[in-house]
Amino acid sequence: MDDLDAYLDAHADAHLERVRAYVRQPSISGEGAGMAEMAEMVADSIRRLGGAVEIVPTEGWPVVTGAVDAGRPRTLLLYGMYDVQPVEGEDWLVPPFAGEIVDLPEFGPSVVARGVYNTKGPLAGLFNVLEAFRATGGLPVNLKFVVEGEEELGSAHLPGFIERYRDRLGADATYFAFYCQDRRGRPKLWLGVKGIQYFEVTCRGGAWGGPRTRGVHGSNAVWVGSPAWRLLRALATMMDDRERITIDGFYDDVAPPSAEDEALLAELARTFDPATELWMWDAERFKHDAAGAELLRRYLYDPTLNIDGIWGGYTGPGMKTLLPYEVKVKMDVRLVPNMEPERVRARIRAHLERIGRDDIEVHFYEGYPPAKTSASEPAVQALIRACRALGYEPEVWPHLAGSAPFYLFRRVLGQPFVMGGLGHGGRPHSPNEYATVAGMRLFEKSVARFITEFAAA
Amino acid sequence: MDDLDAYLDAHADAHLERVRAYVRQPSISGEGAGMAEMAEMVADSIRRLGGAVEIVPTEGWPVVTGAVDAGRPRTLLLYGMYDVQPVEGEDWLVPPFAGEIVDLPEFGPSVVARGVYNTKGPLAGLFNVLEAFRATGGLPVNLKFVVEGEEELGSAHLPGFIERYRDRLGADATYFAFYCQDRRGRPKLWLGVKGIQYFEVTCRGGAWGGPRTRGVHGSNAVWVGSPAWRLLRALATMMDDRERITIDGFYDDVAPPSAEDEALLAELARTFDPATELWMWDAERFKHDAAGAELLRRYLYDPTLNIDGIWGGYTGPGMKTLLPYEVKVKMDVRLVPNMEPERVRARIRAHLERIGRDDIEVHFYEGYPPAKTSASEPAVQALIRACRALGYEPEVWPHLAGSAPFYLFRRVLGQPFVMGGLGHGGRPHSPNEYATVAGMRLFEKSVARFITEFAAA
Repeated sequence: MDDLDAYLDAHADAHLERVRAYVRQPSISGEGAGMAEMAEMVADSIRRLGGAVEIVPTEGWPVVTGAVDAGRPRTLLLYGMYDVQPVEGEDWLVPPFAGEIVDLPEFGPSVVARGVYNTKGPLAGLFNVLEAFRATGGLPVNLKFVVEGEEELGSAHLPGFIERYRDRLGADATYFAFYCQDRRGRPKLWLGVKGIQYFEVTCRGGAWGGPRTRGVHGSNAVWVGSPAWRLLRALATMMDDRERITIDGFYDDVAPPSAEDEALLAELARTFDPATELWMWDAERFKHDAAGAELLRRYLYDPTLNIDGIWGGYTGPGMKTLLPYEVKVKMDVRLVPNMEPERVRARIRAHLERIGRDDIEVHFYEGYPPAKTSASEPAVQALIRACRALGYEPEVWPHLAGSAPFYLFRRVLGQPFVMGGLGHGGRPHSPNEYATVAGMRLFEKSVARFITEFAAA
Repeated sequence: MDDLDAYLDAHADAHLERVRAYVRQPSISGEGAGMAEMAEMVADSIRRLGGAVEIVPTEGWPVVTGAVDAGRPRTLLLYGMYDVQPVEGEDWLVPPFAGEIVDLPEFGPSVVARGVYNTKGPLAGLFNVLEAFRATGGLPVNLKFVVEGEEELGSAHLPGFIERYRDRLGADATYFAFYCQDRRGRPKLWLGVKGIQYFEVTCRGGAWGGPRTRGVHGSNAVWVGSPAWRLLRALATMMDDRERITIDGFYDDVAPPSAEDEALLAELARTFDPATELWMWDAERFKHDAAGAELLRRYLYDPTLNIDGIWGGYTGPGMKTLLPYEVKVKMDVRLVPNMEPERVRARIRAHLERIGRDDIEVHFYEGYPPAKTSASEPAVQALIRACRALGYEPEVWPHLAGSAPFYLFRRVLGQPFVMGGLGHGGRPHSPNEYATVAGMRLFEKSVARFITEFAAA
């Protein structure tokens, strides 16, 4: 480990440059920019480890897969994503794909760039560590890679890929590298992820009334129905003023926390700092009056029905009177334990039917269920020990509030999974997404220890 | 009149070219494109009549004003507008500012361009007629001009102009030139206009909760409040599922039709063709079950609360999970007889307060009340006779469903007003706005007769 640490220290500048090179390459799956180049960059990183690589086409963006046989008894499947969110309509301190280093008031020197936190920074750092192993004592585990380009699109084609390649993907555990220290430096370790069902709702004129194919002069709102009002009134029936979802049976699918999770929630509540979370998410207060374990329980076990975006009619400067013919909304449901995408889709459709609004179109993107691993898994214990070895006691969370398609590893491939590492970043999906330079160095040392511990477990 | 008709026939091509020149000059008051050039073009048209012209600056776009003293006993104030709606996000058959002639299946050769119907086509045609008078027997009336550049913005600075210039604007009547034949060729004559109150509503995070200054990762919707849901729920309290406005007291301000108007409604119901209206506004049905006089009564006497546009959060391609910090809506209320903008503004604010949502910002644009003239006015009778002389019996409507700031002429200057003329156009504020070439020729003959009749009245 001393050799490895010395190597990581000696190569810190070069390793930082690799992170910057990764984020300078745009790879916006929602728009297509730079996706082929980024897949090639990832493939090349695997090749440099002496691995066999394949860029597997899908109906969406390709999956980069590969393997490095190090002749070791244990095998780690490394899951990653090479795509990032769009930057449309955002105001940045520095260009989002310049990989610039900004001295942030609270955090010191940090790379401010789209994807540096979520998650091309950790992905580049992971390759840095793997090269360091090769340059020192050699890799202590065999490696397999699944790096997808559609995580930000809901991983629509990953299930098909996993199905086709399942025979080649056997491993003792799946690992997803991520910077997991919060603003105070405390690492978090999540034992699972939520699922997600994203969808787009469209209301336009038709048999019920309303203009069908074009916006018309606004004065006609007096006698021609309004798709905008129709949509707003319909959506308003799905949520109450306290933001509790009012779709029939929506909460019936939700399982309460397990005993292991309740114990974790009680432990978390002792150190949980609501002020840090509010600062992170730019809010003055939470929407619930709950505090402590109850707030955390709601955070992790409440399903959501979020409006990601809404648009229709005239949105330019000044005044234009228009009766729009079409209004659209992007929405998502985060799925907590026991929720399944098919059931959510059926309940949304049933709700629109019940209120007599099944003319409103709902286009569902590919959804996926949540996934969990137990804290007792050797891979999880290896990551906990890695953090402790560097002087950090991780907060262990039942699962993440965010979503990832880890059911594919847990349910389909039957592997335990673990995610995390030291390092700090923030503002995912927002302007000025960042990760600290000091955190990147800690991250690499933690990943080096995790892999070593995992190999020995 | 024969000389005048012969002159108009002989100059039909040149007159059409003037209309095309007018619409080729963009003049989008909401965005600013071409406004100065268009004001100059109008000023030049007045100058060519031998008139004194002034382009009067306002805090918005200038007003073009002027006068032609023909030494006649009667004076006509000509109101017009030189601005048009934006074309943002619209799909056109031909470029909207090319002034191209398209052979439309139902209507034959027509100019398809932004503003050709609403209302630079009629404005150009009016100047054509005035020049024809000068070239033949001379102008039978003195003229005054008020041509504003902010009609599509709610005429925000016209009241100030009228106040300042009221001593110079004395006349026997105000006339607004407009193509008023419907699809079947029947001319309409409106005795008034609705008022309008346009406004923009913004909901963003603040003391109540929600992200305050930037969108955050959508997973936080589970515990951070949503400005989008807050706005949707608040708006939904303003309208019921039958699109009846549920703002307290909103209908209290509405006066029922006068006896003269009821008689007009009964007459109109005899020939009113709902199918033509539905075709015009691209709808399969009206939002009310009413028919005949009752449908017309609702069309003219119901106030509206229209959503012109709505936007917030992620509206790009594909999927982005985001909890938006801000959502905006453009809305307008059409004011029917007896409604006043101040009362409407107060009721909207009171409603938001009553439901505990006065954190939602409402920015009101300048509003104005409705205005009406009686059918018995000589100017109105002159226009009716002009239509009849060309073989068309006008449908007389109590007022227009649309809005114009004619209270300035009626209430402030104390003049009767009349608007109309033959000619046909359609799709105002929509893609492929058009006016027929044949209608333009009829329009000029009808305006020539109207002015002659008005001079003799």
